[in-house]
Amino acid sequence: MRILLTNDDGVYAPGIRALLRVLSEKHEVFTLAPEREMSATGHAITLHKPLRVKEVEVEGVRANLANGTPSDCVKLGVEAVMPSPPDLIISGINFGPNLGNDVFYSGTVSAAVEGHFLGFPAIAASLVVKEGFSDFSPAARYIDALLSEHGEKIASGKYLLNLNFPPLREQDIKGTKVTTLSHRNYSNVFDRRVDPRGEVYYWMTGRVEEKEEEGTDTHALAKNFVSITPLTIDLTHHQQIKELKKIF
Amino acid sequence: MRILLTNDDGVYAPGIRALLRVLSEKHEVFTLAPEREMSATGHAITLHKPLRVKEVEVEGVRANLANGTPSDCVKLGVEAVMPSPPDLIISGINFGPNLGNDVFYSGTVSAAVEGHFLGFPAIAASLVVKEGFSDFSPAARYIDALLSEHGEKIASGKYLLNLNFPPLREQDIKGTKVTTLSHRNYSNVFDRRVDPRGEVYYWMTGRVEEKEEEGTDTHALAKNFVSITPLTIDLTHHQQIKELKKIF
Repeated sequence: MRILLTNDDGVYAPGIRALLRVLSEKHEVFTLAPEREMSATGHAITLHKPLRVKEVEVEGVRANLANGTPSDCVKLGVEAVMPSPPDLIISGINFGPNLGNDVFYSGTVSAAVEGHFLGFPAIAASLVVKEGFSDFSPAARYIDALLSEHGEKIASGKYLLNLNFPPLREQDIKGTKVTTLSHRNYSNVFDRRVDPRGEVYYWMTGRVEEKEEEGTDTHALAKNFVSITPLTIDLTHHQQIKELKKIF
Repeated sequence: MRILLTNDDGVYAPGIRALLRVLSEKHEVFTLAPEREMSATGHAITLHKPLRVKEVEVEGVRANLANGTPSDCVKLGVEAVMPSPPDLIISGINFGPNLGNDVFYSGTVSAAVEGHFLGFPAIAASLVVKEGFSDFSPAARYIDALLSEHGEKIASGKYLLNLNFPPLREQDIKGTKVTTLSHRNYSNVFDRRVDPRGEVYYWMTGRVEEKEEEGTDTHALAKNFVSITPLTIDLTHHQQIKELKKIF
């Protein structure tokens, strides 16, 4: 397959390197990723400054970096830089999970969504990283196997998939669950401080309150499964249309 | 009602000023908006720099600005700065429409989505601006009337509404349509140039191909109606869950 590979941790991050190593053996991988870490950029795009693309070498193969966001990279890749369109767009592997409402903030997921807007099947991939485990290889090999087994189906079905991996070696992963997005609540998110000049400032922080409902991405990870959530880009609340038509 | 008012064009932009003028007559309006224009920031949040809030005067009333994104402002407002929680969050009025897929890129809509995450009803409002028409007052008065007539219902139903206004005076607006998000395609989005040193760069640009299907936001605006689209924050593609469960 011809794959456009991007991420939001930057082209030199370990997650994208793990994918590049594994996928470039069997596939034609065109890498175009941000030059630096762009986490929590949401679906930002760059309208007011010129975008530049630079060729570099990563893991012994050619890759490209751009001075933009993950969404910029997908747009640039498809519409300006790639010699021919990709069969699939892969974004990741992100350092840290993207679960539930996280998908709205995640640069990793936004890149996949952008690919979907442009008409391509797309996969966002993220790994739970914890102390003592930050090995992206099992997740990269899982994605490689996924493409070998189901790549055609994912591509022809134009799926937009959000994958999350538990921090485990292959032999400890229980399997795969198809899931819904969970609802995660953040609380106590601002740490109020006073600077040396007496001025107040805030750090965004916070604790996630996980609701580990069965069937959700969060639950699957907690049970040591890989989570695959199919996403839609249709944000219309169709059920409410009827209700509102009675009012307006 | 107690309203948290924000936007993505900055606290001094005409759209938020028009709302502040009209709404502060009947409601308790707490304004907290970015200090500068933050368009196309998507759902970005600020994790790596301290956020500061400053009190200023806008339209003869107190307002607040912050050095963050629209989503930051909503989080800060609700969780750090407002003395008590709002009944409703309003974001806008944006300079330019937010239709179809635009909702993913829009700081205006993201602020409303953020409010919804935090459990509050929320309205995003945007105005089509064209040469010869950039008057935000009709849209502001429409929102004021909407709150008087349906504010309770919107608040109790915890709606997340995306409003778009045509560039028309009140007497020329045909009415209101409850709509779905349209599918807008952007094409030819990069302008490739060479700088004086011989280096290639790209400007993101592009033409929108509108599909004015009946029932959509784009269609309603084209027919001189105000468009109201109820949004969901559930991006799970529920129909595909079954399909994928056959594979995994």
